[in-house]
Amino acid sequence: MPDLTHMTWREVRDAGRASIALLPIGSQEQHAAHLPMGTDTVLAEAVLDAALERLGGDGPPVVRLPALPYGHSPHHVFAAAVSLSAPTLLAVLADVLDSLARSGFRRIMVVNGHGGNDEAMRLAVKRFALETDVALAACSYWSVTDGGTEGERPDATPGHAGWFETSLMLAARPESVRRPVAAGGPAEAPLFDRPPHPGLTVERHGEWERAGGTTDDASGATAEDGALLLAHRAAGLAAAIRGFDTATRQSHGS
Amino acid sequence: MPDLTHMTWREVRDAGRASIALLPIGSQEQHAAHLPMGTDTVLAEAVLDAALERLGGDGPPVVRLPALPYGHSPHHVFAAAVSLSAPTLLAVLADVLDSLARSGFRRIMVVNGHGGNDEAMRLAVKRFALETDVALAACSYWSVTDGGTEGERPDATPGHAGWFETSLMLAARPESVRRPVAAGGPAEAPLFDRPPHPGLTVERHGEWERAGGTTDDASGATAEDGALLLAHRAAGLAAAIRGFDTATRQSHGS
Amino acid sequence: MPDLTHMTWREVRDAGRASIALLPIGSQEQHAAHLPMGTDTVLAEAVLDAALERLGGDGPPVVRLPALPYGHSPHHVFAAAVSLSAPTLLAVLADVLDSLARSGFRRIMVVNGHGGNDEAMRLAVKRFALETDVALAACSYWSVTDGGTEGERPDATPGHAGWFETSLMLAARPESVRRPVAAGGPAEAPLFDRPPHPGLTVERHGEWERAGGTTDDASGATAEDGALLLAHRAAGLAAAIRGFDTATRQSHGS
Amino acid sequence: MPDLTHMTWREVRDAGRASIALLPIGSQEQHAAHLPMGTDTVLAEAVLDAALERLGGDGPPVVRLPALPYGHSPHHVFAAAVSLSAPTLLAVLADVLDSLARSGFRRIMVVNGHGGNDEAMRLAVKRFALETDVALAACSYWSVTDGGTEGERPDATPGHAGWFETSLMLAARPESVRRPVAAGGPAEAPLFDRPPHPGLTVERHGEWERAGGTTDDASGATAEDGALLLAHRAAGLAAAIRGFDTATRQSHGS
Amino acid sequence: MPDLTHMTWREVRDAGRASIALLPIGSQEQHAAHLPMGTDTVLAEAVLDAALERLGGDGPPVVRLPALPYGHSPHHVFAAAVSLSAPTLLAVLADVLDSLARSGFRRIMVVNGHGGNDEAMRLAVKRFALETDVALAACSYWSVTDGGTEGERPDATPGHAGWFETSLMLAARPESVRRPVAAGGPAEAPLFDRPPHPGLTVERHGEWERAGGTTDDASGATAEDGALLLAHRAAGLAAAIRGFDTATRQSHGS
Amino acid sequence: MPDLTHMTWREVRDAGRASIALLPIGSQEQHAAHLPMGTDTVLAEAVLDAALERLGGDGPPVVRLPALPYGHSPHHVFAAAVSLSAPTLLAVLADVLDSLARSGFRRIMVVNGHGGNDEAMRLAVKRFALETDVALAACSYWSVTDGGTEGERPDATPGHAGWFETSLMLAARPESVRRPVAAGGPAEAPLFDRPPHPGLTVERHGEWERAGGTTDDASGATAEDGALLLAHRAAGLAAAIRGFDTATRQSHGS
Repeated sequence: MPDLTHMTWREVRDAGRASIALLPIGSQEQHAAHLPMGTDTVLAEAVLDAALERLGGDGPPVVRLPALPYGHSPHHVFAAAVSLSAPTLLAVLADVLDSLARSGFRRIMVVNGHGGNDEAMRLAVKRFALETDVALAACSYWSVTDGGTEGERPDATPGHAGWFETSLMLAARPESVRRPVAAGGPAEAPLFDRPPHPGLTVERHGEWERAGGTTDDASGATAEDGALLLAHRAAGLAAAIRGFDTATRQSHGS
Repeated sequence: MPDLTHMTWREVRDAGRASIALLPIGSQEQHAAHLPMGTDTVLAEAVLDAALERLGGDGPPVVRLPALPYGHSPHHVFAAAVSLSAPTLLAVLADVLDSLARSGFRRIMVVNGHGGNDEAMRLAVKRFALETDVALAACSYWSVTDGGTEGERPDATPGHAGWFETSLMLAARPESVRRPVAAGGPAEAPLFDRPPHPGLTVERHGEWERAGGTTDDASGATAEDGALLLAHRAAGLAAAIRGFDTATRQSHGS
Repeated sequence: MPDLTHMTWREVRDAGRASIALLPIGSQEQHAAHLPMGTDTVLAEAVLDAALERLGGDGPPVVRLPALPYGHSPHHVFAAAVSLSAPTLLAVLADVLDSLARSGFRRIMVVNGHGGNDEAMRLAVKRFALETDVALAACSYWSVTDGGTEGERPDATPGHAGWFETSLMLAARPESVRRPVAAGGPAEAPLFDRPPHPGLTVERHGEWERAGGTTDDASGATAEDGALLLAHRAAGLAAAIRGFDTATRQSHGS
Repeated sequence: MPDLTHMTWREVRDAGRASIALLPIGSQEQHAAHLPMGTDTVLAEAVLDAALERLGGDGPPVVRLPALPYGHSPHHVFAAAVSLSAPTLLAVLADVLDSLARSGFRRIMVVNGHGGNDEAMRLAVKRFALETDVALAACSYWSVTDGGTEGERPDATPGHAGWFETSLMLAARPESVRRPVAAGGPAEAPLFDRPPHPGLTVERHGEWERAGGTTDDASGATAEDGALLLAHRAAGLAAAIRGFDTATRQSHGS
Repeated sequence: MPDLTHMTWREVRDAGRASIALLPIGSQEQHAAHLPMGTDTVLAEAVLDAALERLGGDGPPVVRLPALPYGHSPHHVFAAAVSLSAPTLLAVLADVLDSLARSGFRRIMVVNGHGGNDEAMRLAVKRFALETDVALAACSYWSVTDGGTEGERPDATPGHAGWFETSLMLAARPESVRRPVAAGGPAEAPLFDRPPHPGLTVERHGEWERAGGTTDDASGATAEDGALLLAHRAAGLAAAIRGFDTATRQSHGS
Repeated sequence: MPDLTHMTWREVRDAGRASIALLPIGSQEQHAAHLPMGTDTVLAEAVLDAALERLGGDGPPVVRLPALPYGHSPHHVFAAAVSLSAPTLLAVLADVLDSLARSGFRRIMVVNGHGGNDEAMRLAVKRFALETDVALAACSYWSVTDGGTEGERPDATPGHAGWFETSLMLAARPESVRRPVAAGGPAEAPLFDRPPHPGLTVERHGEWERAGGTTDDASGATAEDGALLLAHRAAGLAAAIRGFDTATRQSHGS
């Protein structure tokens, strides 16, 4: 897997025109008492690397960038997050996209591991595609799947530090999960997670503190479920990379 | 309906603590050859005012602000849009939210009529709720419905200047729709509307121009469908306002 | 009167090169106990629309934009104003001017209804004319008259929520004026309104609160005076639009 | 005259509470073939120092700051100006005002020598007085006079590099005026100097170049007129400083 | 070694008050034909981790943050760098420092691997220490040594992709160095590396391109020298961490 | 000595291509009880003017700009400094450099008198040389010498308001030095002046206040030493100007 950190600049330049540049972004923020600060970065990289492994030598040419380990986590600063402001994250993404385009890349994909990065990621991608002749893709890893249902729980949202993320971490990096995982979760579902009407975004001051920093009970998480969840997303991301390649190769490749 | 423009400042101040401030935001941008520049503003206001009419005297106390008639439309500047940049729209929303909180409002809802405003609207709402002791809601009018299926077309997205918006305008402001509405639409679906894999956001330089400025054929639109679409969303928004009121009244009212 | 909100983009594009784009800007701020929050927006639009009616079919081609209902009112935030900061207002004006120039407009006029917008409006106009090949005009509606003296009071300044604005509102939108209008006014004239030496701008912290939010006694205001004041300004603005058209037609029209 | 540059910090601190801080601001920009780049800075300082001399020991306590020799001159960059952008000038003024307030000053006056600085100066003063418990004054030196008419030409505006400024420079710094001063001036009055209707601000791209960089014929300027013009403004500024002192002493002094 | 990525938030919070937070920052930029893009990041982390190993359990308590893999490299954008602008890097550093202080850290050290980050790093550190009650340290890894002379070349500067960095990479990460390392270097020493007078900073447009992207001949580099250079800097950084701990423990610890 | 303030714009334009523009920058900040606020500005101008005198008619062509009398002194705001923020100083320098390049200057040197300006000066110079085809030099006056040792004290740093600056002021502007200069200095050397390990930058909150605003005892300063210190730096700066001229003449002159 071509890893930008260990490529020379001529290798990067040569790869640029045909390859898809892949940028993982994460966060450093509280994940309850059992998951580590870097959970979102770890998982974005784990899903991306598993997807690249699936694609193997057959897949479209890619260059993988080093992950941005810090994200937009102002809602977790009450609990030791190391957070970039939204304008800072937007600026970082704009600078990275601009650098890549100047180096010759015409196709770039951002793979996100943290819900709080979503708006900035999409704004950055939209803005840059307007200014520069590139094709850009962006996703949060949990949103791309191969549709597999084994191990999935339709009633659960990806949430935060709950069943979903804990399962994934038990599969991807078990040594960083403190055990036993305590049972419990917020007494009342936080409004940002369960808005009072579908389609409504609701944010209330102090809601994360009130919810105790998680969205749902993580104690039922298992490594087995995590491996399935991860596999569905790695396969989904691999398919998404292929799809993006196919859709954009004609107009930008040679 | 208490309309901030025509209230005195003491009336606003008195209303602040208990009322929900309602801010419609729209855009001025190309809507093909048959719909007017202000379509998104017109529809956001139409749905909001219909929702308020439904709520009537029984509904939660509200103060309706004048619509922001300009939005973030850089993707339509190629075709005469009057557009605010994303930082400008963020600044406008931040200033308005801040002013309202200083005036005593503790509950504010933004009702959006333009897809391009979505990320900025959500960023503004998230940021402000972290800084200030308020509860904020935001939605795009097409995303809140009462679930009614009459007149709806599951295969159609809200899109842009296509069947959905044209139907609504034929119901809400027929005198601004140029007729006959020409048949046709983009030869190839634009990537931003039909990404190559579910969950992927894709933006490609020049895609709006390639698609001819619309997402789908508008010629089948009818005022009858439009009236149903509008009714479902007005009822949905009315329910969402009630839901937001109920969810936030206890913690912030007296 | 061509109203951008209800024009299609091709109509806007076609009108651009020859027409003068007209942008009214106002505010939402306290206007004492008898005038509504939107007074400045209402009056800027009233004078502009009356001017356009006077010009009628004979006047220069124009496109009227939707009013920006929010302005720079930090000095009224103590009393429920919904205010944009100066950088935000500058950004909005810069974005709107830039959009219009990209759409082909070469002549743009801003018609202002709020004193606090004055510096930002003039900065925006100066800056944009340096960067782009356009001719720009700007005025506050009270400053352009046909010189008529009937109904005018030479000793009165336009002020704020006093005789001048109250008279105009009694003529332009009487249903929004709470009556009777209380007699009285600030015990001591505020320094910003009566500086200690001609030519000096003076701003003192807390002066608006000390003055009670008005500059002079409004109780003598009448709809008759208001109608005259409005007529003089509508005629003045009509003449200013004609003058701007004549002065800039040769160099920019064809 | 207490000059901040040569005072120790304790002297500044001791003077702060009672004194008026005086900040001259100017520009470095083309002034035709006969006047130097620093004309506006030279004249702002000349008028201010003459005013302070008139006030002498009797006047209110003041601290004179070093002049800001650079101003906002984007309209003269075509001809070798050293210009600050408007946001930069606003930032400089905001930082200086903020520093002075932190040092204990409660009364500050800005004395301007360059028309292009006007909007930024007034914005800075307005903004700062809202945030901080100070009284601020601002003027352009040509706008404050004692009303004397000897030497004045009612038909002439202060303009740029014309009769007014040339006369003043012949009086204030004759060795910097290249002679003979060529007769002539712009064939057609620039729109920014003579708008097509009173009360209208008009800015047209390229107007300064078209006008040749001046507003009117400077060849009739004399040192005698200049001395009178200077005296009227020095006396006016002295009176304005006294007036500002009287108006603000009660509320801020002890 | 406590690594923030794998700590839970309570562990971070508990460590905060007494520990020194350590932030490595690097770059992704051309390093000639033989060194990889991530050289500066790799070396900053290598020196830091070797220093922490030396300190071992005896050293002051520390928390190591994930490296920022991107730096300020506008001078290498001509050759495929992924660069943050100076304002972006300043914003990232400000946000990270601010987050750490909010989490309870009172002592923070930045360990830099890229010359281009120097000014921003120092500005960030100076600014933050003024605003917040913390003690901050910053260094570029090549500037801290134990004074050992073995393996050092007094005539060589750290430079870029020359003898110094190549030696270090041969020791720290030999598998990323392409061999043989070509002999040669810039025909004429670049002005930024050898200014025409000591104490002068000189920057000339296009100098990096003229110099071919390196400062000196790298072909004499050896892993043996690299191991010595690394050891001197690891020992120096270990001593610097101890020194910073001693100097700041009394005033901030308990 | 060609002084921009007193040159006409055509003289500036004519000088631009071949001349070196020289910009002195200083500060207004506390310098203990015996030195004036403007010390850094006074000394930067004194050294620069003495250097220009040494160069005389034989030296490279130069244009001297008016000094920027305000600098980045946030660490002295506790003691009456008039300070620009770092972004403001960066903006001023960027605007001045940009203006000079637009006027035709291809070689610019900044001569700094205040340590706190160092990072911003170097950032500004680096950034501008990347964007524009110019050669830029920058120095702090104390760092350029002819190597003379008479009067120098190897154990003393330039420091702040100590032996070095006091000696220079006694030579350059004795009438502004309050005497006798009190003996004493900080009880403990401030960390920013004596970091706990060479190569480490350390900043601690409140350190300037703890140190009493100076770095070392100034009571031993003499005018004789000051004259020697000044002569070494004037000669050094003259040599640096010549060196910069020689190094950059070929590539940019004609």
